[in-house]
Amino acid sequence: MAKKNEQEFVQHITPRSVDFSQWYTDVILQTGLCDYAPVRGCMIIKPYGYAIWERIQAEMDKRFKATGHENCYMPMLIPESLLLKEAEHVEGFAPEVAWVTQGGTEQLQERLAVRPTSETIFCTMYAKWVQSWRDLPMKYNQWCSVMRWEKSTRPFLRTSEFLWQEGHTIHATAEEAEQETMQMLDVYREVAEDVLALPVYCGRKSEKEKFAGAQATYSMEAMMHDGKALQAGTSHFFGTNFSEAYGIQFLSKEGKLEYAQETSWGVSTRLIGAIIMTHGDERGLRLPPQVAPIQVVVLPIAAHKPGVLEGAKAIADRLSAIGVRVKFDDRDTVSPGWKFNEWEMKGVPVRLEVGPRDLENGQVMFARRDTFEKFSLPMEGLEGAITDLLADIQKTLFEQARDFRNEHTVEVHNYDELKAAVEGGFAKGMWCGDAACEEKLKADINATTRNMPFDQTPCGDTCCICGKHAAKLMYFAKAY
Amino acid sequence: MAKKNEQEFVQHITPRSVDFSQWYTDVILQTGLCDYAPVRGCMIIKPYGYAIWERIQAEMDKRFKATGHENCYMPMLIPESLLLKEAEHVEGFAPEVAWVTQGGTEQLQERLAVRPTSETIFCTMYAKWVQSWRDLPMKYNQWCSVMRWEKSTRPFLRTSEFLWQEGHTIHATAEEAEQETMQMLDVYREVAEDVLALPVYCGRKSEKEKFAGAQATYSMEAMMHDGKALQAGTSHFFGTNFSEAYGIQFLSKEGKLEYAQETSWGVSTRLIGAIIMTHGDERGLRLPPQVAPIQVVVLPIAAHKPGVLEGAKAIADRLSAIGVRVKFDDRDTVSPGWKFNEWEMKGVPVRLEVGPRDLENGQVMFARRDTFEKFSLPMEGLEGAITDLLADIQKTLFEQARDFRNEHTVEVHNYDELKAAVEGGFAKGMWCGDAACEEKLKADINATTRNMPFDQTPCGDTCCICGKHAAKLMYFAKAY
Repeated sequence: MAKKNEQEFVQHITPRSVDFSQWYTDVILQTGLCDYAPVRGCMIIKPYGYAIWERIQAEMDKRFKATGHENCYMPMLIPESLLLKEAEHVEGFAPEVAWVTQGGTEQLQERLAVRPTSETIFCTMYAKWVQSWRDLPMKYNQWCSVMRWEKSTRPFLRTSEFLWQEGHTIHATAEEAEQETMQMLDVYREVAEDVLALPVYCGRKSEKEKFAGAQATYSMEAMMHDGKALQAGTSHFFGTNFSEAYGIQFLSKEGKLEYAQETSWGVSTRLIGAIIMTHGDERGLRLPPQVAPIQVVVLPIAAHKPGVLEGAKAIADRLSAIGVRVKFDDRDTVSPGWKFNEWEMKGVPVRLEVGPRDLENGQVMFARRDTFEKFSLPMEGLEGAITDLLADIQKTLFEQARDFRNEHTVEVHNYDELKAAVEGGFAKGMWCGDAACEEKLKADINATTRNMPFDQTPCGDTCCICGKHAAKLMYFAKAY
Repeated sequence: MAKKNEQEFVQHITPRSVDFSQWYTDVILQTGLCDYAPVRGCMIIKPYGYAIWERIQAEMDKRFKATGHENCYMPMLIPESLLLKEAEHVEGFAPEVAWVTQGGTEQLQERLAVRPTSETIFCTMYAKWVQSWRDLPMKYNQWCSVMRWEKSTRPFLRTSEFLWQEGHTIHATAEEAEQETMQMLDVYREVAEDVLALPVYCGRKSEKEKFAGAQATYSMEAMMHDGKALQAGTSHFFGTNFSEAYGIQFLSKEGKLEYAQETSWGVSTRLIGAIIMTHGDERGLRLPPQVAPIQVVVLPIAAHKPGVLEGAKAIADRLSAIGVRVKFDDRDTVSPGWKFNEWEMKGVPVRLEVGPRDLENGQVMFARRDTFEKFSLPMEGLEGAITDLLADIQKTLFEQARDFRNEHTVEVHNYDELKAAVEGGFAKGMWCGDAACEEKLKADINATTRNMPFDQTPCGDTCCICGKHAAKLMYFAKAY
């Protein structure tokens, strides 16, 4: 049945084992996640990709609100003079800013940056809004697009424009701001692991790799199927770096004028890239049920036979009624075989097939996208069975990714071991803390320090790059 | 109790009856809806204002999805060459475009427009994506910010940057596209009337007032409390204007190459301005419960007395549990009188006061923001009573606005009547259809045609501007 179609369909995707990069490109284009835009380095997020982003937004946003944050919206244009106030920050971002220089027919007196990030504008407003300790903390977030004029781009991973959220908070004390930084890192970890099924290593970035203007940057690092790292979210503690530059002062309980302590944190549409490169396989996407726009696709088989369409539709409706995201695919323009392949490629976790015999026998066939298992399920109690099945697929995808990650994380003790390890995964080893070692690693094999785990139990006492005394435990990898 | 505070607090708002424009500015700044940005003509949407936008988004978005639309995201930068393809459209938008001319350190070969609207990029992609009638319709929407370099600006009503949604759909037939245009206008009307409590006149814009590039533009027009019109949403039928310019062709069922029929439709953060100027009163905002970020504020009275804080909190929790958006205001840094005024100014529909005697008597005091009525309610069955109360406030605000609108809509038969009517509201009269009459009206008293209602029952047969034969019934007003 439709064998030729099936063949053709799957041929569109380059085998992952042959060329991971081309496989990624084929998958995102063929599954309708995105398309290239007629603008340098930009992408179009198509409905299937955007629906994943909406799921990520919903899961993140409810946790932001539950931890006392409020959303707001800041202007996308930032006057150059504002951008220049924090020296490190400017240096970090200026080379990749897009500039508006004309408004209507008028040549602007001052260039306006299309925001690469919004610390500068949040700080300007916080300086205006905060007077007293009673005004603190202020815990704001915004969902928006940002622009960074990147030289080499790849959809979802690195594009000139991308969608993200940026949280910006100010606090009366460093302790409180540090707690906030950690809390938001943990919110990110929770969504990554529990919703996106992405196991992540959380820890602190090196001085070299931290955010421009931060005192400390923490990240979560996910491992892609090619063994490379993807920085999947960051949370920064600024201390008073920005508040001194922008004059964010408040009168403390004790009547003293103090600088506010600040944080910022962000995740972006990059997470969609992480899902693809972590869970995808030779047949295309595999989407964790919690983030899948479609969790179950219901296909009528031999749909021309009496009662089949109605019977299949009734099953789809039953699942919709309990909140499962269901697609009832009753197209008569393509064969069932075509549909099997299409929904497999699109990573829908569960396929249900409903034919005349199934209806007679009071059952449906299901196929799991993660394991390719096929069984029949009784119609009675289908709701519970599907709910359990989705939970099991979610768990399985996480465990597969976690096992893969663990198997590809190698403890290293010297430079040769380190260089070998990062060819196929992460290296975990001791580091002296010297940026010169990071530069050497980058120059030699284009690998970088990823982060220092919170559990700093040492695995030696010499730097795996230079051999000198080392007290820091660090993850190393090649990274996107 | 706290009389002085109350006086001072309310003094912050200029009386609406004295200076409507200053009242508006005072209200939006004092209630924390927005703030001016350090960028020409831009605004900052603060959390209280953004929370209203999130409510509007949620209500709109669920209706878009229920009518088969999908969200996506297009790049914010549009190459000048793409913008130039549809002549009328360019002419309409070019004078108000902000241009990116530098990316990083590089001078761009071609200027990039910060999108003023996205017809040009949607059309470019539709031309690529559509081949056959099987691909149609495509019904996409995006939530984003747009930029129009406006000369004179006012927060929420007209700013250089604003937030909106823009739906863009393509169809095989003109009939289907026309139906879509009408359907989305009706979705807008439903949200405006049922959620925002804004009565609107729906109808077709004149040729002069239609969207640049449309065959027909339909709008909903709301009346502000000063009698001026606010165009609160538009839905456009393009026919094949854009698809011919951008080459959106498809192979029909009959095997013929045809141009697609297109629509677009949008509402923006302007709706927040409409809510303020329709429902606000001398004491500040009055928010319809369905769109209010906080529906009920619970205030403990004599909070130091034993059991009061706990008792008040328990009531807040009971209401939260049934999905009411509740704020429990237990601040001890301001007096109850201050809180009364603050929440009144912020337009919270219901205030509940819980003191020691209320708790003893098993009751709570409530105050309605719309009518200032105060009563006590028994604790028992409070959930049902509050639900009914919120529904009644929603209905009352709509009816007040509708009655006001109807009382300030005057049927006119000649130019003197027309000129008098638009000083305090809308004029409804016959119009010859000649743009010269519109230009005269604009030049004489800065009023405009608003729209032609679908019910065209005539109220005469001569143009109320030029006196010639007239067959069109039109609404006229001064407008924001």
